Amino acid sequence: MTPKGFLFSTVEAAIRYLHRKDLALIYSTVKANIAGTFTTNQVKAAPVQLDMKKIRSGKGQAIVVNSGNANACTGRKGMQDAADTAEHVAHGLNIKPSLVYVCSTGVIGLPMPMERVRPKISELTDNLGKSNIQDVAAAIMTTDTFPKIVHKKVMIGNKTGTIAGICKGAGMICPHMATMLCFLMTDIALEQKTLFKTLKDAVTNSFNRITVDGDRSTNDTVLIMANGMLGNPMITEKSESYPIFKKALHEVTFNLSRLIVKDGEGASKFIEIEVHGAKSETDAEKAAFAVANSNLVKTAIYGNDPNWGRIMAALGYSGTKINEEKIDIYFGKVKVVHKGMSTGKDEKAAEILKGKEIRIIIDLNLGGSSVKILTCDLTEEYIRENKSYRT
Amino acid sequence: MTPKGFLFSTVEAAIRYLHRKDLALIYSTVKANIAGTFTTNQVKAAPVQLDMKKIRSGKGQAIVVNSGNANACTGRKGMQDAADTAEHVAHGLNIKPSLVYVCSTGVIGLPMPMERVRPKISELTDNLGKSNIQDVAAAIMTTDTFPKIVHKKVMIGNKTGTIAGICKGAGMICPHMATMLCFLMTDIALEQKTLFKTLKDAVTNSFNRITVDGDRSTNDTVLIMANGMLGNPMITEKSESYPIFKKALHEVTFNLSRLIVKDGEGASKFIEIEVHGAKSETDAEKAAFAVANSNLVKTAIYGNDPNWGRIMAALGYSGTKINEEKIDIYFGKVKVVHKGMSTGKDEKAAEILKGKEIRIIIDLNLGGSSVKILTCDLTEEYIRENKSYRT
Repeated sequence: MTPKGFLFSTVEAAIRYLHRKDLALIYSTVKANIAGTFTTNQVKAAPVQLDMKKIRSGKGQAIVVNSGNANACTGRKGMQDAADTAEHVAHGLNIKPSLVYVCSTGVIGLPMPMERVRPKISELTDNLGKSNIQDVAAAIMTTDTFPKIVHKKVMIGNKTGTIAGICKGAGMICPHMATMLCFLMTDIALEQKTLFKTLKDAVTNSFNRITVDGDRSTNDTVLIMANGMLGNPMITEKSESYPIFKKALHEVTFNLSRLIVKDGEGASKFIEIEVHGAKSETDAEKAAFAVANSNLVKTAIYGNDPNWGRIMAALGYSGTKINEEKIDIYFGKVKVVHKGMSTGKDEKAAEILKGKEIRIIIDLNLGGSSVKILTCDLTEEYIRENKSYRT
Repeated sequence: MTPKGFLFSTVEAAIRYLHRKDLALIYSTVKANIAGTFTTNQVKAAPVQLDMKKIRSGKGQAIVVNSGNANACTGRKGMQDAADTAEHVAHGLNIKPSLVYVCSTGVIGLPMPMERVRPKISELTDNLGKSNIQDVAAAIMTTDTFPKIVHKKVMIGNKTGTIAGICKGAGMICPHMATMLCFLMTDIALEQKTLFKTLKDAVTNSFNRITVDGDRSTNDTVLIMANGMLGNPMITEKSESYPIFKKALHEVTFNLSRLIVKDGEGASKFIEIEVHGAKSETDAEKAAFAVANSNLVKTAIYGNDPNWGRIMAALGYSGTKINEEKIDIYFGKVKVVHKGMSTGKDEKAAEILKGKEIRIIIDLNLGGSSVKILTCDLTEEYIRENKSYRT
């Protein structure tokens, strides 16, 4: 399951949560090529700022992650805490601090309780290998209700490599990554430039096409380490196996992003929104996100109400140029709107909405571009979770 | 209270709601100057499309409004129904159909039940004067919990004129007007061009600066009729009394918009968000709306949690260029963020949040522009109301 040459460790540091692991380490036994994408929010957490600098080298060997505290809006002390954490981990692993990446997720604006984190770091490095990838996936959870892990075997030449990924999600999930941490590992050897390009494409088509509540976070990070332990010839964009790797990585990130939406805060339903017939992909995206982020659409679906009028309204204010009289809308296979008007099939559509996985298909009938966005419904449970997150 | 020369009528047409008035008429005994602003949503309800054509004449004498059905996404039949309604009303009033404006609010996508509306129109015109402005304000309610009426006396020269306004709001309230109908009446004489300009400014600073859930509707309409019954010299932009009228109209629309937010669907708290120190008014607006529309901010306030980290995150993705290290944030008089970091006063701020009217002040410290946006919190009740709106 786990790619060759990766070891894991988890400890309880009581950063915020008690009686559970909240500090985790991912370690490659050899130096790896590393690539990453980070939140587009202008307010970037300290570890994000730190990693964005480090990653310019293209090299990495360890990732230390905590849950419970985002180390965001923490000023100079926050930067110092992130750097200190990397240094302590590097010391315990006997590698250079520049090879250690730091990620945090949790509440914004509280100082990192370094008095509890620091003493735990030697335990973390000493215990390397005593935890598995599942333990790490569990340690990085915040409001997630289940750990998220995906792996995939990939034939590279005559060898079988592995890509594994874990992530955490839940709330604040929106285009450009949200409160989302994702760690990808592979034993397949890839040139760093190729690794970055493939990751960027994969993220565009997965994590950047999901939304839970329209809020984008300060801490989003996707990192991939490729340690080459498989022993394959280094893959570049020209390699025969490049498309194979690319497809496999897309599959892994897409499946991880599905897991995030399925575990959206308080979500009772998983919703796929497809927009077809747009003049451009940007138009399709804008239209789909307007629908996906509409509280009125999300609550209607929660209530099994095929209230397509709210979808029409969202399309109308999406910023995408539409022609009302050309729009077709389907819930699953039931066409509810034909040329901008009711087909009278709302009752049939209401039956479809009783399911747990809902597909909404919108055809703008204006061009050839399409997009698929994943989202979830909006329920009382979302309110309950978020009104008391810090209390 | 009511300006001179305006009469009202309301009847039960059982369009959607039973045992209540749902069809209303506002009538000026003389032809009035009229001006309007309409939804920016590309999907415009039939009556909106009709009124946008009629209003080019600048003249009007009657407004017929129904609640329960939006007559939106109803195609050619919807246009015909709106035109028919205007014609029947005009016939009953013995005026030209071009002087009759039609407004609808309610569910999108259902055909208007003309078989129930048409027979009620003669009752509506016959009963003119038997209802008052309060009755009309009640008849146009959908999920509103109280009728919304504001009036103001204005000294024009040595005469006392009146501006009165009613509106309905509740959900789908967002910049550029939302499911919002507002009817303003005055007996003060104003040149049509001046009337339109004053209305536009007033709407920009009131109805376009409120948000309940970020959804913009297909039916928003603000109409003002000035019938000149006060007998003052016609006001133009150059008149001495122009600034007096302008100020009074702004006050009326601002107070109406406050009422809408106070009655936001499921709202338990009224929130004022002020952004100061922005480089431009557009920047200030973008920043304030990002905060006002963040589900995470709204639920935190609902839960009395001064989670300013969510405000920082919203500012960071607002699209307004910010400098994290310059931002100050206050809840009421309690400063919770100084230069992008916690002041440690969250407990004090939590006390402030227990109130019903919350003021959030954000200083970007980058320039001289400010804006104030009104919004409300997001509660379980919003979900409950909207999941079952049509059922």
